[in-house]
Amino acid sequence: MLAVEAGLARAAERAGLAPPGAGAAVTLAVSEGSFDLAAIGRTGAAIGNPVQALVKALAGLVPEPAAQAIHCGATSQDILDTAAMLLARQALTAIGADTELAADACAGLARAYAGTVMAGRTLLQQAVPTTFGLVAATWLTAIDAARAELANVRHTKLALQYGGAAGTLASVGDKGPLMTELLSQELGLPAPVLPWHTDRLRVLSLAAALAATCAALGKVARDITVLAQTEVGEVAEGTAGGSSAMPHKQNPVASVVILGCTKQAPALLATIAAAAEQELQRAAGGWHAEWQPLSHLIELTGSAASWSAELLPGLRVNQARMRANLAATHGLPLAEHVTALLAPTMGRLGAHELVAAASARAAEDDAGLADALLADEAAAARLAAANITRADLYRALDPESYLGSAPEFIARALAAHARGALA
Amino acid sequence: MLAVEAGLARAAERAGLAPPGAGAAVTLAVSEGSFDLAAIGRTGAAIGNPVQALVKALAGLVPEPAAQAIHCGATSQDILDTAAMLLARQALTAIGADTELAADACAGLARAYAGTVMAGRTLLQQAVPTTFGLVAATWLTAIDAARAELANVRHTKLALQYGGAAGTLASVGDKGPLMTELLSQELGLPAPVLPWHTDRLRVLSLAAALAATCAALGKVARDITVLAQTEVGEVAEGTAGGSSAMPHKQNPVASVVILGCTKQAPALLATIAAAAEQELQRAAGGWHAEWQPLSHLIELTGSAASWSAELLPGLRVNQARMRANLAATHGLPLAEHVTALLAPTMGRLGAHELVAAASARAAEDDAGLADALLADEAAAARLAAANITRADLYRALDPESYLGSAPEFIARALAAHARGALA
Amino acid sequence: MLAVEAGLARAAERAGLAPPGAGAAVTLAVSEGSFDLAAIGRTGAAIGNPVQALVKALAGLVPEPAAQAIHCGATSQDILDTAAMLLARQALTAIGADTELAADACAGLARAYAGTVMAGRTLLQQAVPTTFGLVAATWLTAIDAARAELANVRHTKLALQYGGAAGTLASVGDKGPLMTELLSQELGLPAPVLPWHTDRLRVLSLAAALAATCAALGKVARDITVLAQTEVGEVAEGTAGGSSAMPHKQNPVASVVILGCTKQAPALLATIAAAAEQELQRAAGGWHAEWQPLSHLIELTGSAASWSAELLPGLRVNQARMRANLAATHGLPLAEHVTALLAPTMGRLGAHELVAAASARAAEDDAGLADALLADEAAAARLAAANITRADLYRALDPESYLGSAPEFIARALAAHARGALA
Amino acid sequence: MLAVEAGLARAAERAGLAPPGAGAAVTLAVSEGSFDLAAIGRTGAAIGNPVQALVKALAGLVPEPAAQAIHCGATSQDILDTAAMLLARQALTAIGADTELAADACAGLARAYAGTVMAGRTLLQQAVPTTFGLVAATWLTAIDAARAELANVRHTKLALQYGGAAGTLASVGDKGPLMTELLSQELGLPAPVLPWHTDRLRVLSLAAALAATCAALGKVARDITVLAQTEVGEVAEGTAGGSSAMPHKQNPVASVVILGCTKQAPALLATIAAAAEQELQRAAGGWHAEWQPLSHLIELTGSAASWSAELLPGLRVNQARMRANLAATHGLPLAEHVTALLAPTMGRLGAHELVAAASARAAEDDAGLADALLADEAAAARLAAANITRADLYRALDPESYLGSAPEFIARALAAHARGALA
Repeated sequence: MLAVEAGLARAAERAGLAPPGAGAAVTLAVSEGSFDLAAIGRTGAAIGNPVQALVKALAGLVPEPAAQAIHCGATSQDILDTAAMLLARQALTAIGADTELAADACAGLARAYAGTVMAGRTLLQQAVPTTFGLVAATWLTAIDAARAELANVRHTKLALQYGGAAGTLASVGDKGPLMTELLSQELGLPAPVLPWHTDRLRVLSLAAALAATCAALGKVARDITVLAQTEVGEVAEGTAGGSSAMPHKQNPVASVVILGCTKQAPALLATIAAAAEQELQRAAGGWHAEWQPLSHLIELTGSAASWSAELLPGLRVNQARMRANLAATHGLPLAEHVTALLAPTMGRLGAHELVAAASARAAEDDAGLADALLADEAAAARLAAANITRADLYRALDPESYLGSAPEFIARALAAHARGALA
Repeated sequence: MLAVEAGLARAAERAGLAPPGAGAAVTLAVSEGSFDLAAIGRTGAAIGNPVQALVKALAGLVPEPAAQAIHCGATSQDILDTAAMLLARQALTAIGADTELAADACAGLARAYAGTVMAGRTLLQQAVPTTFGLVAATWLTAIDAARAELANVRHTKLALQYGGAAGTLASVGDKGPLMTELLSQELGLPAPVLPWHTDRLRVLSLAAALAATCAALGKVARDITVLAQTEVGEVAEGTAGGSSAMPHKQNPVASVVILGCTKQAPALLATIAAAAEQELQRAAGGWHAEWQPLSHLIELTGSAASWSAELLPGLRVNQARMRANLAATHGLPLAEHVTALLAPTMGRLGAHELVAAASARAAEDDAGLADALLADEAAAARLAAANITRADLYRALDPESYLGSAPEFIARALAAHARGALA
Repeated sequence: MLAVEAGLARAAERAGLAPPGAGAAVTLAVSEGSFDLAAIGRTGAAIGNPVQALVKALAGLVPEPAAQAIHCGATSQDILDTAAMLLARQALTAIGADTELAADACAGLARAYAGTVMAGRTLLQQAVPTTFGLVAATWLTAIDAARAELANVRHTKLALQYGGAAGTLASVGDKGPLMTELLSQELGLPAPVLPWHTDRLRVLSLAAALAATCAALGKVARDITVLAQTEVGEVAEGTAGGSSAMPHKQNPVASVVILGCTKQAPALLATIAAAAEQELQRAAGGWHAEWQPLSHLIELTGSAASWSAELLPGLRVNQARMRANLAATHGLPLAEHVTALLAPTMGRLGAHELVAAASARAAEDDAGLADALLADEAAAARLAAANITRADLYRALDPESYLGSAPEFIARALAAHARGALA
Repeated sequence: MLAVEAGLARAAERAGLAPPGAGAAVTLAVSEGSFDLAAIGRTGAAIGNPVQALVKALAGLVPEPAAQAIHCGATSQDILDTAAMLLARQALTAIGADTELAADACAGLARAYAGTVMAGRTLLQQAVPTTFGLVAATWLTAIDAARAELANVRHTKLALQYGGAAGTLASVGDKGPLMTELLSQELGLPAPVLPWHTDRLRVLSLAAALAATCAALGKVARDITVLAQTEVGEVAEGTAGGSSAMPHKQNPVASVVILGCTKQAPALLATIAAAAEQELQRAAGGWHAEWQPLSHLIELTGSAASWSAELLPGLRVNQARMRANLAATHGLPLAEHVTALLAPTMGRLGAHELVAAASARAAEDDAGLADALLADEAAAARLAAANITRADLYRALDPESYLGSAPEFIARALAAHARGALA
């Protein structure tokens, strides 16, 4: 808020609305002055926001006539909204840096484990094989998409707020456009088409991009907690956390804390969206309801990004467990592959049913799918009719043989990431 | 969903994965076939989604070998997600058209009432004057911003979903990229970098743009309900609604119904954001939790847009009431203007306090601010010291004299709208 | 958290799990020890919660063997959850006191203004008359309902958490039930049927009662902002707030700040409800996502209650404006009453249409409803046919004649309040 | 809505406000009449709710003078709100029955598997042992708590709405209380203290109880999806679902669909809570925003309850996998137990660190904790010093030896359930 008031004073001086030196005097007071925050808070509470008390305190530090420059043409909301935009810009820089580290780490994982076969899992059941490289590429693509949203918001939605008491800038006469332009230069924030006191779409876009970042990071953290389960054991955090009760525990603390943050984002976004119904020239409550959720959302996203930037570069990948978990179901995740071999001669639905029945027998007996098929007379006949030998069947049950476009998809995600990183 | 399956069958034929004529056969069955939706629903419930039952029903309408083309390489989620994208595209067209009507009507109001003075109101109290043109320009700018979001989502976020059982497209062998490209052509939907089964940022962006549209339209509707109050009476809906009990009621029904829609948007957006925490290759619940909120959000936004497109062109503006409401407070909304006259000679804070005291006396006595100032000896002396005559004071209390940049702001909003409409 | 650890140590001593004097030693360290909160925070971050670091710090202040008593049988979540319950209990006491003041003030308003006629307003349009006493009685009933929820939560939902590492209390052997009972006595918190580590319905009930309180207080604040509008002017806050720009402003600051708080409650409640999907014996993220929203919700409700306790006793009521606003529409709000007179002779729908037409003419001409009816030949005939004289008509248009059960309703609300206050 | 109008007509007749036979005539028209819902919908849209159109249609089916009884004293909101309460009552009956089945099934599981040892899991890592009976008992306790909320809402929050145009019941003269009492008798719904047109705490309480039910059921479903994972395999749904792509899949469809429902509840609750900020005598939008979320929340809770009532009685429990999963970590989940043995002689923190180090070595070597301890010289010395033999150590590592209060907790949950079922 003080930075906004300082920029405003400098703009006022340049516009001829304050005497020479006023801008520098206010800027000096802002950077060197000491402010009694508790007193400002107390006075602010009675008025409904802290700006008036802050202005008074600032004016006490600046001699007349330079003090004339303070708060020139502004209303409280101009200061608070513009300050929020400055803070958001800072936060977006930090979040941008941390999510870049996280994305780069995902790219590293995607490259390093492009050939590492593991079970794909849908509805938490083993499905067909995939690679850990493709898992990491999916994380990468989502984080990159969120980063693009953040960058877009930064460049097109952050803007200064300067409209005066009711959005007309009447108190600076005909100098509204000039002052707006000068303030924009001073703060390095774009000028909007109009003051946006009760048009909160900029704030909503900012919140939506933060929530999208949380969504991307939360998905990664969720995957890690699932893959790090004792019974799955395919990944582990580089620095696992202990337990106050149990000496053996190696908890995926970073992922858990990320989820603790990201799970709060959706509702904060909702509050900001709901608060956008702001009546007339300044809302009675809607604007005030925005302050805390926006702060919290920025903090939580920043925290999730920071933890992710630490977690992902250190993630430990257990390729042996990946292969072992896939092997433990004796070929069932390749059932679709066998169906594909049979489909041309007996139709897709018929093949689906034949293989489903064999899969059920295999699961029942904890046996292999190949054996379950070959042991069944009808199935064996179908295989023979399709000229599928035992060796063909075993080949079909090799996960490496059924990865489809996984390598190509990884390559695409990495290329898109490289383009984005250049841009 | 049927359109997706038809496009998929045509793509499969073109890719050599289905016999010649298969694409046309499936497309014909899709367009002419009759489907027992209740039966599909019942079967679908047991499986957790309707796709498998739909595929079976479709397969029953297409002779072999053409039926081989059906569902080629796809998993249920491919069909449901891509169908959702096609529906979203249709909805965005309709919402785009209705919000264009609404925005154009706002532009018309901004032009027509550019000079119509009214009370600006902050925290629901009369503040300084503004014009109804500027109010409408603010509505316009917000709706245009929402329209830009919708257009951006349409062009950059809608994409087909095609990844097969676990996102590798393994069941079409090495033809994953080719099939993706052909399906993209058939449906006119861009291909994504990767299948996005558990990267839900596209859906979240769509939801955020819809919620932003609701935010913009809800603000307009809120303003109209406030300005249409019996005691304010500055606007009225063209077609007001009656009451089942009270014969005299003229309710702002369109605005109320718009608010009834838009108030539901934030939480639906939150559900979609929360559901984005989707584990591994297909979520156990998160994906399913998205279906209804997305449908409802599309419906509600469409409904709010449709009502707005009717409401805004017919809005009735009562310029006399605007002027009368402003006059009723005998110059108080111009108190800031008088402060500005006094500030150069007595400092901004001193002037603020002098005028505040006079305003309080004026309100107490239901008198004019000019009289309250002139009747007070100290204030009169200050006015005299500043060479402010009674005539100067009356001029300062003329709302027309204190509109600042309102005309310029309106012109900017209209110019930005014109550029957007051309783009 | 320290209070919980102290209570736990005393319980452990009583259960024979710690040496004599251990409880007192830990209690002393808790009350007199100094703790490096920043250091605990740093260590806690790495583990995912602050308890382990706090326990270590506490153990450093207590000599062996008394230190054996610390954290006896507990897991981190036992300490955090129980501490949250203790804080909630304190908060409920404060919120209970403030909402009692608010409710009593509403009761005072309901009594004082039981006969004060004002316009009822539906969809922000004048409807039929009501009294300000009934408005205040409605506020009272809602606040009382919220207070009953708070009291119910306090007595039936707050409970200690004590389950150990996985909810079995295995580390205290067969002394789980005894320790639970003793800890319950030490802290004055009821023991639950089971540890509720991942059964979050207690927290959800607490959050729902807080949100209900916010809903009741937000409705009151909303009404006050609407009734305090410049153009309505029927109520004013005792201590209105100023504006940094406009010297004349008298803002309803308390109501605005209350709304700024209460509008944040629904989404925080939603986060807590969503976080209740907590897997197995301790959730990976869901539990952690609860901490901040619960704190914020308690703070916001407390703040809204505190402002309400100040606002309501000082509310200024302008009976003259109430009567004047109602009179300004020349009888239209009584149109329903006239319909009722005509209905017996011409049917309800016919009467409704006749009076609706006259109302429209009256509004058009800014004339009285009586005149509009009598001036119309057909309407005059209908009145005559029903033996309704001009005097009857004027009597029907007197708001005092059409208050129905308002006095009775006020009496009921006050009686219910008195019963509740006694209970 | 028709049922409400019929009850109202009968009440009007009994109150002497309608001629004898009017109640029966309207009731007959309601039960036998045919209504053009599309036409009513179209007309209703223009007015903002369907009641007026419905009343007109109903009046067309009832001859005068009986038709006088229709809508007697009521406003649209009276009909809609009371109808919502009647629907909620029906829904609560159905949800009550389904959640009773679900709770009874949990009680059955808790009894049947009271001695079935499995790994407790915190943050998705194996913690200390628990029993499946205690898991089921925790489910039971949460469902029972939700059921108590539902019952409480049913008995104390559902109430008729009857206030007329602005909540005074002016149009029935002095018969407001009598009509309220008679209507209450006719519909079997309690009369509230006051009309609650803009006091929405009843609706909010209903929504909160539904969301609590979703929270309890969602937790159960989440646990089942986690325990049913391919790599865990400890439970399976009785009727698993297939996949359109993969013939081997056995998906936990019921759990997934339950989560698809329950994940939508929190935000719908938030909309209802936010919509409770309803101004003056009837809200302009807030009331309308409630209709759909309440309907959806009822439907979703009903659906989740119905699926749970099918899922839980058929749940398949794999005791062998439970024991095998626990054994696979060679005693690590019992590390806390060993710590407890060592704590008396070397302090809790020292024991914790010693056992943590041994646990790390055991995990590293995929060896047993006992061996890791005995192989370490220092640890062996500590064990010897504490007189802990190898046999003592093996006994401590037997999960059965470390179940603490699990049996007692199960017994308490079952007893509480039995009391609740009797109540």
